[in-house]
Amino acid sequence: KRPRDYGIRFGVLPTGPLNAITDVPGVRVGQVTLNQGQNIRTGVTAILPHDGNLFQQKSPAAIYIGNGFGKLTGYSQVDELGTLETPIVLTNTLSVPTAADAVIDYTLAQKGNEQVRSVNTVVGETNDGTLNDIRGRHITKQHVLDAIGQAKTGPVIEGNVGAGTGTICFGFKGGIGTASRKLPASLGGYTVGALVQTNFGGVLQIAGVPIGVALGKYSFKEKLDGSCMMVILTDAPLDARNLKRLAKRAFMGLAQTGGIASNGSGDYVIAVSTAYRIAHETASSFDELKLLRNDNVSPLFMAAIEATEEAIINSLFAAKTSTGDQGNMVEQLPVDKVVDLLKKAGQAR
Amino acid sequence: KRPRDYGIRFGVLPTGPLNAITDVPGVRVGQVTLNQGQNIRTGVTAILPHDGNLFQQKSPAAIYIGNGFGKLTGYSQVDELGTLETPIVLTNTLSVPTAADAVIDYTLAQKGNEQVRSVNTVVGETNDGTLNDIRGRHITKQHVLDAIGQAKTGPVIEGNVGAGTGTICFGFKGGIGTASRKLPASLGGYTVGALVQTNFGGVLQIAGVPIGVALGKYSFKEKLDGSCMMVILTDAPLDARNLKRLAKRAFMGLAQTGGIASNGSGDYVIAVSTAYRIAHETASSFDELKLLRNDNVSPLFMAAIEATEEAIINSLFAAKTSTGDQGNMVEQLPVDKVVDLLKKAGQAR
Amino acid sequence: KRPRDYGIRFGVLPTGPLNAITDVPGVRVGQVTLNQGQNIRTGVTAILPHDGNLFQQKSPAAIYIGNGFGKLTGYSQVDELGTLETPIVLTNTLSVPTAADAVIDYTLAQKGNEQVRSVNTVVGETNDGTLNDIRGRHITKQHVLDAIGQAKTGPVIEGNVGAGTGTICFGFKGGIGTASRKLPASLGGYTVGALVQTNFGGVLQIAGVPIGVALGKYSFKEKLDGSCMMVILTDAPLDARNLKRLAKRAFMGLAQTGGIASNGSGDYVIAVSTAYRIAHETASSFDELKLLRNDNVSPLFMAAIEATEEAIINSLFAAKTSTGDQGNMVEQLPVDKVVDLLKKAGQAR
Amino acid sequence: KRPRDYGIRFGVLPTGPLNAITDVPGVRVGQVTLNQGQNIRTGVTAILPHDGNLFQQKSPAAIYIGNGFGKLTGYSQVDELGTLETPIVLTNTLSVPTAADAVIDYTLAQKGNEQVRSVNTVVGETNDGTLNDIRGRHITKQHVLDAIGQAKTGPVIEGNVGAGTGTICFGFKGGIGTASRKLPASLGGYTVGALVQTNFGGVLQIAGVPIGVALGKYSFKEKLDGSCMMVILTDAPLDARNLKRLAKRAFMGLAQTGGIASNGSGDYVIAVSTAYRIAHETASSFDELKLLRNDNVSPLFMAAIEATEEAIINSLFAAKTSTGDQGNMVEQLPVDKVVDLLKKAGQAR
Repeated sequence: KRPRDYGIRFGVLPTGPLNAITDVPGVRVGQVTLNQGQNIRTGVTAILPHDGNLFQQKSPAAIYIGNGFGKLTGYSQVDELGTLETPIVLTNTLSVPTAADAVIDYTLAQKGNEQVRSVNTVVGETNDGTLNDIRGRHITKQHVLDAIGQAKTGPVIEGNVGAGTGTICFGFKGGIGTASRKLPASLGGYTVGALVQTNFGGVLQIAGVPIGVALGKYSFKEKLDGSCMMVILTDAPLDARNLKRLAKRAFMGLAQTGGIASNGSGDYVIAVSTAYRIAHETASSFDELKLLRNDNVSPLFMAAIEATEEAIINSLFAAKTSTGDQGNMVEQLPVDKVVDLLKKAGQAR
Repeated sequence: KRPRDYGIRFGVLPTGPLNAITDVPGVRVGQVTLNQGQNIRTGVTAILPHDGNLFQQKSPAAIYIGNGFGKLTGYSQVDELGTLETPIVLTNTLSVPTAADAVIDYTLAQKGNEQVRSVNTVVGETNDGTLNDIRGRHITKQHVLDAIGQAKTGPVIEGNVGAGTGTICFGFKGGIGTASRKLPASLGGYTVGALVQTNFGGVLQIAGVPIGVALGKYSFKEKLDGSCMMVILTDAPLDARNLKRLAKRAFMGLAQTGGIASNGSGDYVIAVSTAYRIAHETASSFDELKLLRNDNVSPLFMAAIEATEEAIINSLFAAKTSTGDQGNMVEQLPVDKVVDLLKKAGQAR
Repeated sequence: KRPRDYGIRFGVLPTGPLNAITDVPGVRVGQVTLNQGQNIRTGVTAILPHDGNLFQQKSPAAIYIGNGFGKLTGYSQVDELGTLETPIVLTNTLSVPTAADAVIDYTLAQKGNEQVRSVNTVVGETNDGTLNDIRGRHITKQHVLDAIGQAKTGPVIEGNVGAGTGTICFGFKGGIGTASRKLPASLGGYTVGALVQTNFGGVLQIAGVPIGVALGKYSFKEKLDGSCMMVILTDAPLDARNLKRLAKRAFMGLAQTGGIASNGSGDYVIAVSTAYRIAHETASSFDELKLLRNDNVSPLFMAAIEATEEAIINSLFAAKTSTGDQGNMVEQLPVDKVVDLLKKAGQAR
Repeated sequence: KRPRDYGIRFGVLPTGPLNAITDVPGVRVGQVTLNQGQNIRTGVTAILPHDGNLFQQKSPAAIYIGNGFGKLTGYSQVDELGTLETPIVLTNTLSVPTAADAVIDYTLAQKGNEQVRSVNTVVGETNDGTLNDIRGRHITKQHVLDAIGQAKTGPVIEGNVGAGTGTICFGFKGGIGTASRKLPASLGGYTVGALVQTNFGGVLQIAGVPIGVALGKYSFKEKLDGSCMMVILTDAPLDARNLKRLAKRAFMGLAQTGGIASNGSGDYVIAVSTAYRIAHETASSFDELKLLRNDNVSPLFMAAIEATEEAIINSLFAAKTSTGDQGNMVEQLPVDKVVDLLKKAGQAR
């Protein structure tokens, strides 16, 4: 059961039908989970904005850096050119190069890309080194290619899956989470979807209720550090400038959960629009665009905040207790107790 | 009564003795309020990091831009050099030049500044044009000089005062608010103080409780736009890089209140350390500094988040219903009803 | 005579007919010069991208900060929204607030702006405090309004005029300079115009010839500090992202002259496109744009570099020896000697 | 023979004894060259700021992005924390992940790093895909480890070597170049060293002389695109903020050579100080630093401009004609003809 099934609400906007990033039409997610032996707890999550050749048909995109203690690849080119030309891949910190290399493999091998000699990968990570033997670098290029290859529309599995297999959030087992918002027609009718890889600390709030305090688990009562990767997709026609602004709001959603973006945090938001594509090559010298005006982006901002907050909490509700490297155990969020606390606060039914 | 007097708590860290920005030793605040006739509802708030010659003894500083739809002066020089050399002044949007000119007057006239021919003012603003006849530009240089001149340590008046005289926050009367956090000795023992000028919208949460929804007043049910100026002072020895990181966390505190940083928002955070000063001129070629290491800044981050959140809510609790330009009336937050809601949620006593 | 009249060439692209920023259709420049008594050597230069209501019909724009030791207003809003809504005004450092206030006056008073309660001024400066009694702040709002009011298309006066009246460049009298480039049709046929206010140091090169060394006047042989304001206009249809990239290239043009962007330099580039306008208010939720693709911007980059380099040198050739505040005298570039040196190097005829 | 051996001078500051990045005490450079068969023309260049454990003893560092069409890893963490914790590695575009993975290998394997589970690699690249079968990705991790392992102080080989084996600059064979400046004691006595990987276009100037035009080879007469990686080392005690400013000046040095930072350019500068180190772990909560004041950095700025300009030209003088992938041939700069042109202009003897 997801938080909504307990009557928990995040903000005021309605969700999309799946309450997932895949509510944005055409968006696909693929995940490979490595839950092997006693010490491998890691994986890969890939997000594809459309099912065409991503390099030849680039997507408008932007990246916001919340706190830059992380190893994301591809930042500067996305920032300079305003486009994404590969799948977005999430994995663990030390496997970023392997994943980036696999994304190059994937791109070079695509039909139509025979002459491609430069490709900008966007690979993010968080550090699952408590539960996972991260120094072992168990992710292979094939795992990454499989995650991309298996990407599909429809529901997204949450919790200990893909790049969230070994992550820890607010001292509990974190993981992958997703959510979405669908603006009413009066506000444009657009969908904003979020997918997060949660691995960070702070003082957990759920729908505003101070759960971290109630459970006695929070910064700096204990050491809770880490990172959060956030991916935002939307079908609103935004250019890179407004996508960067949208990305920044996802970081505000993280703040809503009580995240503090501690010194050791690698908090990045990658925001992509599916509303149009920028051809790699074209006869025209121009891009003809119909872009949402600045005046109309605020509802999307609110949608990004709400969807990110909910996606983070969804990851916590879905994650399960895990034991891994060196016998380290991380317990799942005690959902029953949490729901009780939320009920008392009038935030669950 | 301030929120704390109702038993409302924001986060987990203790406040300083005044729960105000002036808990940071040496910090002074001065305010001039223009509440005149039927249509003048504006003012000036000045914050001084120390009582010396601010130009000759500069303070390490940084500015974070949350959403840049605003008219703050001085950004680029603070960013380039890492120092503040004037009082920080807050006022209304169209009076920024007047205030900047007054700060130049102030600086040029200071003993020891007889040869100064360049000064970087830091003047922020929000738009009080609903309650205030902002086009009348009623702020004079003298008002600004008075605010600076009257600046003092000790308690800070909140609500409809100074630069907050005419502001609106979450659809209610906003204003000036302040709060502080004092880290326990084990986390360094530093103080972080916040002062805010609240004039923005979103979906109000108080200590996590969805008050905006309960009161039926939130974006985009109605149009709630605007800005928030945030000033953070600390006695922790941070350089400009870490002060910029600290400033970003204040913006996360704004997110905690339900602010969404809408398109029309001018959200800026100015962060300043009082731990050391950079002499304008000195015989030495070097600055000898003892700076807090990156590894030790996270508790300060949390303090900035909490203090900013509380300062914003403090501004709402202190502000009073105001009628102004063109008969526009903005009601204050219905504190009794709010406290009841918070009690039911277990967040007030 | 301008450098081109001596056969001096900067780069490889052709100029526009006037070799001035006003080669970009519709662009207007107005200047007011204060050359009064023994100690007032200052002024105002205003650049208007079109002759309509600039607030109601905003221009796409971006600002690049080369070195941020300066007092430019308006940076953050241009960066956030990607538009310019006022004339660009240049003046001296301590008169920025006066100029900004005048720009507000101008905007509020425009027909159609009766409801405007927020306006983002873009006022830049350099410090003319050697020749000018800068502490006297002799610029009035009327001077600024006059500069705006007198703005016209056609040739632009260079040298000791407007905001360049009292400036110093590479140890010689600097001032206002302008130049342009017109791309061949095969590269798009666009025009790029530059206007500069030169007040900086380094090791002067003219068309690559090391004039500063030949004349024995260069950093750090003597103290040559200061700033350069650069304004770039183009009729190429660029959005704010590509305008920011274009602006950065103007800074490369400054580098071509031997400028070093010293610590005390306030080097800013404001880049604006006249190819389209963004209405302040409109019935549509969308901006329909036909933008030059990333792949086609490089010739514009080269044009901006060349035009800026030439504009800077033009300012030096036009400026005349000036004596001002406290009897300080700054000599003009010894043009005859310089041309001789250039002839010997094969760079003049 | 290097340009200086022909009497060519770049700027006014003296060089260090080797006129190389290794003039900065302790800096080491290692290069592995792959010049194999008909189509492999690539390699690796590694720069190490000191000979200790780079992860445990981090170096203050900053990265400036000139034009971001490139694949540099590690930007955000260097920017956030202000430190470098690995060797800097340069290679070809598609081998960045392999190189990053090798740097992780190197770091994890270092004595004292047994518990390291996160490491921020800084791997830059340019695209050698004309001469090199870049899609073949012929760089192995061992090549990278060898480049790091062989790194040594002393003279640095320039031209078709290491990461410069297959690069093209201004239409001629480019490569690795290096240069340095030693400030006179009156300006601090510091050394600034530059190392570049040249692979870009524009309108070549050598010591200001328009060589590109004279040889009929320049943008956009023909298509000359590409990138430039620049590495700056100094023994001046700068913090990350001033290192970022220093890095920006290297980009001005690129401008001095006639580079235009075209759309497709990945121009990055990594600046590092060897004056002090930041321990990864330490008992103290503080970094005690003696930093050069802002007022004293300008001579370093000039040094970075000059050294970068000269390093780029050095790469062109050292590079040799190369034939590679698909029979593509790139001719070396015709040095004799160039020197003749420089002599005529009075810039060589």
